[in-house]
Amino acid sequence: MSLNENKNHNVPESHPRYSSLKYRHKIIEGMKNLVVAEAGLIAHGRGECFDYIIGEKTTKTAKNAIKAALAVLLTAERPVISVNGNVAALVPNELVVLSKILNIPLEINLFYAKKGRIEAITEVLKNAGATNIKGTNEDAMTELSGLESNRRKVNFIAKADVVMVPLEDGDRTEALKKLNKIVIAIDLNPISRTALWADITIVDNIIRVIPEMIETANKFKKLSTNELNQIINNFDNKLNIQKTLDLIIEHITKQKEEAFKILEG
Amino acid sequence: MSLNENKNHNVPESHPRYSSLKYRHKIIEGMKNLVVAEAGLIAHGRGECFDYIIGEKTTKTAKNAIKAALAVLLTAERPVISVNGNVAALVPNELVVLSKILNIPLEINLFYAKKGRIEAITEVLKNAGATNIKGTNEDAMTELSGLESNRRKVNFIAKADVVMVPLEDGDRTEALKKLNKIVIAIDLNPISRTALWADITIVDNIIRVIPEMIETANKFKKLSTNELNQIINNFDNKLNIQKTLDLIIEHITKQKEEAFKILEG
Repeated sequence: MSLNENKNHNVPESHPRYSSLKYRHKIIEGMKNLVVAEAGLIAHGRGECFDYIIGEKTTKTAKNAIKAALAVLLTAERPVISVNGNVAALVPNELVVLSKILNIPLEINLFYAKKGRIEAITEVLKNAGATNIKGTNEDAMTELSGLESNRRKVNFIAKADVVMVPLEDGDRTEALKKLNKIVIAIDLNPISRTALWADITIVDNIIRVIPEMIETANKFKKLSTNELNQIINNFDNKLNIQKTLDLIIEHITKQKEEAFKILEG
Repeated sequence: MSLNENKNHNVPESHPRYSSLKYRHKIIEGMKNLVVAEAGLIAHGRGECFDYIIGEKTTKTAKNAIKAALAVLLTAERPVISVNGNVAALVPNELVVLSKILNIPLEINLFYAKKGRIEAITEVLKNAGATNIKGTNEDAMTELSGLESNRRKVNFIAKADVVMVPLEDGDRTEALKKLNKIVIAIDLNPISRTALWADITIVDNIIRVIPEMIETANKFKKLSTNELNQIINNFDNKLNIQKTLDLIIEHITKQKEEAFKILEG
């Protein structure tokens, strides 16, 4: 049998790295369809490694951040979810379900501008059932101050009070914070600039976060504003990130003993 | 200013991430030239993250592993350095210098077979001055037992006593070990299967490792076989990996306090 990269999706479901390889394939396909930037592949690899050191599971601290995020999104006046190429390639269907449950628009916002990319991502989102997509018309965009990259061109984000930024670059989170927006970040690197600047940082893999958010959204829709505000007030992002780092340290400490067991087999 | 991925190499040298962005650009260019597989971009990203958690420097434990590796390479009978696409894209010149100092062949060995890749990598190595390149003629290859991937097709590696495998997949290291080869791995993930299976595991970024190896090789060429054997005997790979994990834990613990300082600026 001769392997090549186009056969990655033929990996059997029993393979220990099945899920990881499946999403790796989605990202590579995304690049071929213009949805994902080349640097998006490298970013995906960084994510794989950070996921590995949190144990490839949704931690207790991530669950706390997800709850706080939902409470913020449900009490916001003009929330929006920013979408980049990797997010569109990895979890388009889940993202659309979440945006509909919360009645929040999706805004395409890209670091790497390239002819045809916005259109390619729009198509992916539409195929997933999205009906409320912003950021598709460059002529209607305004520019965020304090930001040089292509990320500065925004539409609904300019007037939003809460912006959820999955898989973000640090510059934009800082710019959004300086414009007094509330930022919810999904970032596997707990000490990236985005993670540190955000009001709520969900340190977890997007492929687990969005389904967990959908479940939590359905539950939290029954809560009162008072109850939601209490959840927000009880959440301390800095402390939560530090606890996440403690979990990473615990995980690595455990690996220090257990990793070598594979040699005994 | 509008950014796009083709301008990454225009990043000013003063940029805090200059080195990281420069090598990211080399990898993306490598993909465009067939040298690097698409999955190689994702692998590079994983490496960036692991490098980040060791502090982006050559640690004391990496230096110990490099010394042991050189002692092994200098006392080996038929050593060889395996070369894949990422290595050829990142450090071709340095690799050729090392192979010449040690008088060791470079053998191209790829996980992802694709028409024209071997030729593209051969050209990169030749342009870097390589004169002793193996693995270029598919007809002359034999197959390693215990390995299903394209990595099984080898040339000089089949008869080598010591194989240095930079940026490796786990299956092959295990197969090489089962054939009683001595394996020297360069892998930023200290608990990858390659890292655990290898006899000597250098947990460090290839862009720092090869220059460090060149320097050490020049020094160690003056040592006697006895002195080199002593260096080998004093090296404990498992212990060295565990100490590397301790360094990672120390680094993350430090980040836990220091990371948030950027918010105070």
